[in-house]
Amino acid sequence: MKKSALQKARATYQPKLPIALTGPVKAVAGKPTQSVANQEEIKALFPTTYGLPEIHFEKNTAPTIGKPVNVGVILSGGQAPGGHNVISGLFDGIKKIHRDSRLFGFIMGPGGLVAHKYIELTAPIIDEYRNTGGFDIIGSGRTKLENKDQFDKGLQILKELNISAVVIIGGDDSNTNAAVLAEYYKANNCGVQVIGCPKTIDGDLKNDLIETSFGFDTATKVYSEMIGNIERDCNSAKKYWHFMKLMGRSASHIALECALQTQPNVCIISEEVEAKNMTLQQIVNQIADVVAARAAEGNNFGTVLVPEGLIEFIPAMKALIAEINDLLAAKADEFAAVDKDSKRQWVIDHLSPEHAATYASLPAGVALQLSLDRDPHGNVQVSLIETEKLLSEMVGKRLDQMKAEGAYNGKFSPQHHFFGYEGRCAAPSNFDADYCYALGFNAACLINAGVTGYMSSVRNLVKPAVQWQAGGIPITMMMNMERRNGEMKPVIQKALVRLDGAPFEKFASQRDDWALNTCYVYPGPIQYFGPAEVCDQPSLTLQYEHKSK
Amino acid sequence: MKKSALQKARATYQPKLPIALTGPVKAVAGKPTQSVANQEEIKALFPTTYGLPEIHFEKNTAPTIGKPVNVGVILSGGQAPGGHNVISGLFDGIKKIHRDSRLFGFIMGPGGLVAHKYIELTAPIIDEYRNTGGFDIIGSGRTKLENKDQFDKGLQILKELNISAVVIIGGDDSNTNAAVLAEYYKANNCGVQVIGCPKTIDGDLKNDLIETSFGFDTATKVYSEMIGNIERDCNSAKKYWHFMKLMGRSASHIALECALQTQPNVCIISEEVEAKNMTLQQIVNQIADVVAARAAEGNNFGTVLVPEGLIEFIPAMKALIAEINDLLAAKADEFAAVDKDSKRQWVIDHLSPEHAATYASLPAGVALQLSLDRDPHGNVQVSLIETEKLLSEMVGKRLDQMKAEGAYNGKFSPQHHFFGYEGRCAAPSNFDADYCYALGFNAACLINAGVTGYMSSVRNLVKPAVQWQAGGIPITMMMNMERRNGEMKPVIQKALVRLDGAPFEKFASQRDDWALNTCYVYPGPIQYFGPAEVCDQPSLTLQYEHKSK
Repeated sequence: MKKSALQKARATYQPKLPIALTGPVKAVAGKPTQSVANQEEIKALFPTTYGLPEIHFEKNTAPTIGKPVNVGVILSGGQAPGGHNVISGLFDGIKKIHRDSRLFGFIMGPGGLVAHKYIELTAPIIDEYRNTGGFDIIGSGRTKLENKDQFDKGLQILKELNISAVVIIGGDDSNTNAAVLAEYYKANNCGVQVIGCPKTIDGDLKNDLIETSFGFDTATKVYSEMIGNIERDCNSAKKYWHFMKLMGRSASHIALECALQTQPNVCIISEEVEAKNMTLQQIVNQIADVVAARAAEGNNFGTVLVPEGLIEFIPAMKALIAEINDLLAAKADEFAAVDKDSKRQWVIDHLSPEHAATYASLPAGVALQLSLDRDPHGNVQVSLIETEKLLSEMVGKRLDQMKAEGAYNGKFSPQHHFFGYEGRCAAPSNFDADYCYALGFNAACLINAGVTGYMSSVRNLVKPAVQWQAGGIPITMMMNMERRNGEMKPVIQKALVRLDGAPFEKFASQRDDWALNTCYVYPGPIQYFGPAEVCDQPSLTLQYEHKSK
Repeated sequence: MKKSALQKARATYQPKLPIALTGPVKAVAGKPTQSVANQEEIKALFPTTYGLPEIHFEKNTAPTIGKPVNVGVILSGGQAPGGHNVISGLFDGIKKIHRDSRLFGFIMGPGGLVAHKYIELTAPIIDEYRNTGGFDIIGSGRTKLENKDQFDKGLQILKELNISAVVIIGGDDSNTNAAVLAEYYKANNCGVQVIGCPKTIDGDLKNDLIETSFGFDTATKVYSEMIGNIERDCNSAKKYWHFMKLMGRSASHIALECALQTQPNVCIISEEVEAKNMTLQQIVNQIADVVAARAAEGNNFGTVLVPEGLIEFIPAMKALIAEINDLLAAKADEFAAVDKDSKRQWVIDHLSPEHAATYASLPAGVALQLSLDRDPHGNVQVSLIETEKLLSEMVGKRLDQMKAEGAYNGKFSPQHHFFGYEGRCAAPSNFDADYCYALGFNAACLINAGVTGYMSSVRNLVKPAVQWQAGGIPITMMMNMERRNGEMKPVIQKALVRLDGAPFEKFASQRDDWALNTCYVYPGPIQYFGPAEVCDQPSLTLQYEHKSK
């Protein structure tokens, strides 16, 4: 494996740890906990792991003597910068407990546990991956650990390898599954602890006790680098409107953080669209109004950030998609027999008047896609819709109208971008390198403390790493009951952007200025060596949230 | 203007200069020069500026006393990282000649000279822009300075502002125009010198005397950061083929440099396609063979780099496009009357059999675009073709065939990316920051030496900046006669990728290994502070070209 100069230099970086984890560690239990909602139901589903106390770690005055422990680790779901540091922190943590401890990595995600695919992660392997991006050390996958068969299959290999603890690195769903697995192994006295680590660039796994998921910091910094570069180009050439879509399955945290970093002319926040019950046309009109206002000042250029999950947050679109799904399920044969060029009209004729109007307002390509591109369950594939192009096309049409009415006099040339895969495997920022290493090291301490069903928790993150607080949170504490695929399930609450939260309020208070004036900020690329104010700043989301506490 | 932390820290960077420019400077003239070809014609067109000697600068033993000079500067064409440093180097250079020297910037490109739009660039303005990306200090534009009217209009404002020298920062076309302008002002004793500076991220303005154009280094480093991040994601998820198109109007230098940096599975080089007279289908088959070979090893993922200018380098496509242009010009009315769904067949029926076959092999969308999307001159807009999607769609079809024949057994899920605007306005790398500053400072020295029609030349670029050689090259020396829009014109030869050059040979010798095996390299983002081997490396193209000398 040929390494770049940066990779070689970065390999020597020693991530920082909270002071409590730097010497002998003492686990201190707090009071029993409750789930955030539906306490009775959650308690019934997690009889042995419900109500456990929060734990925090303190420096121990006396040295502790640990026993060797064999640990398994799993990367679950989409990549996020810093996964390798969670694993190297975990490795160093269990080696600190006892030098004969061993770490096994299950291959290509949770499926590796079930299929008994693993490698032992030894010191030479770990050293190859310190401070690097990617999940390629053992790969990741999207298999969901949900049923007894999988748990039992997994247990076989765990027993074979004498593994007494599994660390699952994943998002809200994967941590929900970790809690279920923990309960099963504990209820059945399997002798296997399960610990979760909060991962996702989307930033939607956070709550009062988990300040942020790892990877969000690095990914948003990479996207902000790109957005800033494009803003500078935009402000130099002064001739394009750049529509930039940003990855993020549902919540708009990424778009919001990038907007705070780069101050674009427009940034759509899905949660606001939903709360205000906005239509697609209203969003389009809002953008067109900004284009027209800037054109009136002679500025025929600008930047628009669009969160990937937008479409499903527009109530009218959501309802339309639901109706199309039902319609085409009910009349699949009739629809299939319709000539391709007549399909659009057929759909319009068969929808309720309200949804027919929404459908008719869509550009032909998107309308066709909504009726043709369907997943194996027959549902519309919303993620295939190129929202950035849909918006710019509709904005162009709206501007033509406004021009005819004398309300707009300018040029509108759009460019389109989608930033996603560029940010998920970047080498972690100093923040994520430290945070991830601490999460992994801390997971080892939780294992040593003998607990199960806990999420590794490192807090006080806007302070220097030495002041971070380390501990564990019972996963059941973050759960409530939600309907998933028609069934009520215990799940970790997904954190959407709060419209009464400090980051959104900061954005909302400045966006009118950013819209009309050109207030672009150019963050530039992540720096790993250099002044602390450049290299060590946590996300603005974290900073504003902290200030408002 | 709110500044990012990196911008603030980077503002204090002092670019390095060649030793010859650090004290009093002496201009030493070499022998008279000749144009690279068509000597008689070029000489006739440039009677007063042809045959001038190369100049190089040496440290002067005695201090020199200069007179104040007023200079105008113009940014021409597409953005490239480092333009602001050319201007700050020029500013510092003329201030070193005399503290009363003044610098004027013409606004939004060459058009600003003709329209008399300018600002004076004073020290506080210059200091705001040191070491930043973008051309936003005065903006850029694509007006071509080609005719006497423009030259005379320009002269009015130059006289009014007492400007005796103009520096034009641009690519091959803009520098060609600079030579014409220099000749005109000299032949007419206008008392205005004209100096060019070699700019373009495309890297196609280079020759024996200009080692590289500025901006290429930074832009390719930004693209390589993105490509490396995507490669790491690709190698973690192991489920996608990523097709990445890279900006670059015609030459493939950018794709080649990025390939050398990141070692993707496939990189298409347009110049090779043309030299081997390859068809689009042959390119597709080549990629499909790599996909199949990797699938046979269980690797259903990979990365493909595609140069933006590819289509026009495929001889059969070039001929097809020319025939379509002629056909639709001749039968515009007949074509317009054809029903939309029948247009494709109409085109096939009216093309010569050879081109009809090529046209018929194209996906419907691209075929339609070739006949519908036309520029104001009625020509096909090749730049609108999404080559990365065209290739992946055709590769998918080819794989279906191969599967049917039993020659392929795998999954093929493509993802698409286009990297262009992200790189043109990044903050310049240390290399570009130094190189640009030196080019600008050196331009001031050429002005002080009293010459005109020269390009600022800084060479020996793989060595530390202090060892760089500074001087000037008569622009006519780089010229030959070429047919442009039906007329023979004196132009600077565009430098395409040389298939016998060291960078291509290095690539060609390794690509089979990169195709089958996964040899990705992850360069990471540009670093401005930190170890020299991370921060100060020039492009691999420069390094390999230098080694082969």
